[in-house]
Amino acid sequence: MRMYDIIEKKRDGEILTNDEIQFFIDGYTNGEIPDYQVSALLMAVYFQDMTAEERAQLTTAMVNSGDQIDLSAISGIKVDKHSTGGVGDTTTLILAPLVASLGVPVAKMSGRGLGHTGGTIDKLEAVPGFHVEITSEEFVSLVNKNKVSVIGQTGNLTPADKKLYSLRDVTATVNSIPLIASSIMSKKIASGADAIVLDVKTGAGAFMKELDEAKNLASAMVSIGNRVGRNTMAVISDMSQPLGNAIGNALEVKEAIDTLQGKGPKDLTELCLTLGSQMVLLAGKAESLDEARNRLIENLNNGKALEQFKTFLESQGGDSRVADNPESLPQAANQVELPAKTSGNVSDMIADDIGTAAMMLGAGRATKDSKIDLAVGIVLHKKIGDTVKEGESLLTIHANQEDVNNVQEKLYASITISKESVEPQPLIYDIITK
Amino acid sequence: MRMYDIIEKKRDGEILTNDEIQFFIDGYTNGEIPDYQVSALLMAVYFQDMTAEERAQLTTAMVNSGDQIDLSAISGIKVDKHSTGGVGDTTTLILAPLVASLGVPVAKMSGRGLGHTGGTIDKLEAVPGFHVEITSEEFVSLVNKNKVSVIGQTGNLTPADKKLYSLRDVTATVNSIPLIASSIMSKKIASGADAIVLDVKTGAGAFMKELDEAKNLASAMVSIGNRVGRNTMAVISDMSQPLGNAIGNALEVKEAIDTLQGKGPKDLTELCLTLGSQMVLLAGKAESLDEARNRLIENLNNGKALEQFKTFLESQGGDSRVADNPESLPQAANQVELPAKTSGNVSDMIADDIGTAAMMLGAGRATKDSKIDLAVGIVLHKKIGDTVKEGESLLTIHANQEDVNNVQEKLYASITISKESVEPQPLIYDIITK
Repeated sequence: MRMYDIIEKKRDGEILTNDEIQFFIDGYTNGEIPDYQVSALLMAVYFQDMTAEERAQLTTAMVNSGDQIDLSAISGIKVDKHSTGGVGDTTTLILAPLVASLGVPVAKMSGRGLGHTGGTIDKLEAVPGFHVEITSEEFVSLVNKNKVSVIGQTGNLTPADKKLYSLRDVTATVNSIPLIASSIMSKKIASGADAIVLDVKTGAGAFMKELDEAKNLASAMVSIGNRVGRNTMAVISDMSQPLGNAIGNALEVKEAIDTLQGKGPKDLTELCLTLGSQMVLLAGKAESLDEARNRLIENLNNGKALEQFKTFLESQGGDSRVADNPESLPQAANQVELPAKTSGNVSDMIADDIGTAAMMLGAGRATKDSKIDLAVGIVLHKKIGDTVKEGESLLTIHANQEDVNNVQEKLYASITISKESVEPQPLIYDIITK
Repeated sequence: MRMYDIIEKKRDGEILTNDEIQFFIDGYTNGEIPDYQVSALLMAVYFQDMTAEERAQLTTAMVNSGDQIDLSAISGIKVDKHSTGGVGDTTTLILAPLVASLGVPVAKMSGRGLGHTGGTIDKLEAVPGFHVEITSEEFVSLVNKNKVSVIGQTGNLTPADKKLYSLRDVTATVNSIPLIASSIMSKKIASGADAIVLDVKTGAGAFMKELDEAKNLASAMVSIGNRVGRNTMAVISDMSQPLGNAIGNALEVKEAIDTLQGKGPKDLTELCLTLGSQMVLLAGKAESLDEARNRLIENLNNGKALEQFKTFLESQGGDSRVADNPESLPQAANQVELPAKTSGNVSDMIADDIGTAAMMLGAGRATKDSKIDLAVGIVLHKKIGDTVKEGESLLTIHANQEDVNNVQEKLYASITISKESVEPQPLIYDIITK
């Protein structure tokens, strides 16, 4: 078998066999196939696409290229949730204890990553004492005991995907549905989940700006998951404006605590209930989505969800008193309001620009080595569709710097106030199950 | 400027600016842009094509990447001929002295190369004493004195093209019209020609098997040549069967000598007259194609063309007596006929398979280091459309090996004899001037 023939075949729109895909991934992982042949193949895939079978095989080959997490010692169906990422997305912090409170085992491997705010681990580290430096054995034992635990990246997962992603990043081949879908799914599958709930974002703050593209990506991932024997479904949700009100690490932890008490922002709560009921259903802990949803709402209202969160924090060294006193979380020195310059209805809040404003405050990492300021961020008081009076505060900036003029300017530019009446933004666009 | 953006732009079907193409070629030539980015761009070009202006700019950038041959010391308009290559193509050996006999300066840089038979230099070296190891000064002086000289590859011409070609060869991006056209034209232009006559072959023995593809390539090259200020035209000629009757180095020299005396095969003579009259016209040595053609025929018949060939051979150390005694050329030990197995009309002679048979005899190089046997080869007695009787010889095999069973088998498989009447194969399909 020769890599040349594989490139030529895909270039000509033919379907690669399982053996050919395996040969390519094996050869690239072990360094026998050079970057320059792989980038030519990736560009050919960009133009010629891959069939559902090719995508599943590519995913499987990438999973097999490295270690796989063995969660078999955890009893029950392990359901993982993955979001394609956005601004102010606090769902993991809420969903993990929430579904665990219904007995769904949540064994979450998480990262720090780059972006507008930190990753799930950064956010959790806003809780004094909390840490993810636990052994795999402790991790398994904590999930069996408390139904929920979070651990940092461990093992050499999907090295083929890491190599491919680095190459795609410099050869303009990132934005290809079969390549994105197999990359995400290979990581999820190698992480050991039995079932997967995907939250695919669409809108200005999402990777997939267009709804059609988001649906294509969601279908591609759902198809891969089900083909390789992992029950998978996807929710398409809005990311044209930030989700919830808080953007920033400690601010999002506080918002998660509010939500776990049934007092969270409407959109964030609704998305958590939508994703959460799917997770509960896939885990076999309810007979129907309605039943799952009702039981989740019950646990938000009866304190069990918050209790589960406290247990989780304590089990990994965290000070669970923050759940009752969110003021003990890191707080920024300055709080600056952003008054509306005119009266009207909020018609646009460009999510990624607001995310960039949070990053300018220090809430996120621009490079791997950047240090995050856990206290800073933005809390929105208005969302799309809301009425606002001139001078009324649109949002509060939480800053540790004195001068926030640039941030204010960025925020004003990202928010549009219209004289016309404005429909509220839809939150859930679609549910994809096959 | 970033290579990433250039890849992305071409991927999305946009037109690259002159500066972007220059940046890419400069960066690749000096090693600053890595292979893996270039192969992604090449694959994007494969799918998205390039405009006439992009192709011309790519060609110019490749010409400027290395040395250029300065032929300005040679008086007159220097016209070069280039063939896209085929089997039994003896045209250069004939055309060089033929058009020189009408005062057209022929300053030919030639190579050895790989293929079914040797390159022009290999063929000329079948003449005892002939050599191409002359200095650039001798080369110029010989053309000024005798109107014709052949020199081996000199200088570091189009290093960007060499690097690109090697990369295309391993990434399935050879077969792209803008890339083929700019590669060929960059070499011709760097070789210093003022005007260029292209012989683009089509059919089984050609790189471009389909007539449409050959026309596209011809138009692309003509457009590039004219855009960069070199008067350029192309002839589309047949290569479904071999050109002329001889395939092999010394055998082709003998055929060239016959043709220069007006006694050559009809197809080879006709192609030389077609290409030659275009060369004479572009060189300004005739007022019309008809006039050029008539004067060329005159010189084939009055001995001036052959005389010019002798002068040329002598001027580079060759024994010109071969022109009168072709028997003094290297001769193979064995001559084996290939009798027709059935009576009928020759309906197919697959050119590249017959070329492969010649290579099996040792007439060509499979790798750079192969040694050529100048004496061996094949002489056809029948061409497509000819009638043949059972037992009549289709061709003669000139071999230095005893056992030619494999070669005979290959040849039988490449020749089809039909009971139906067969139209002779057309020779010239089209003339492309813009």
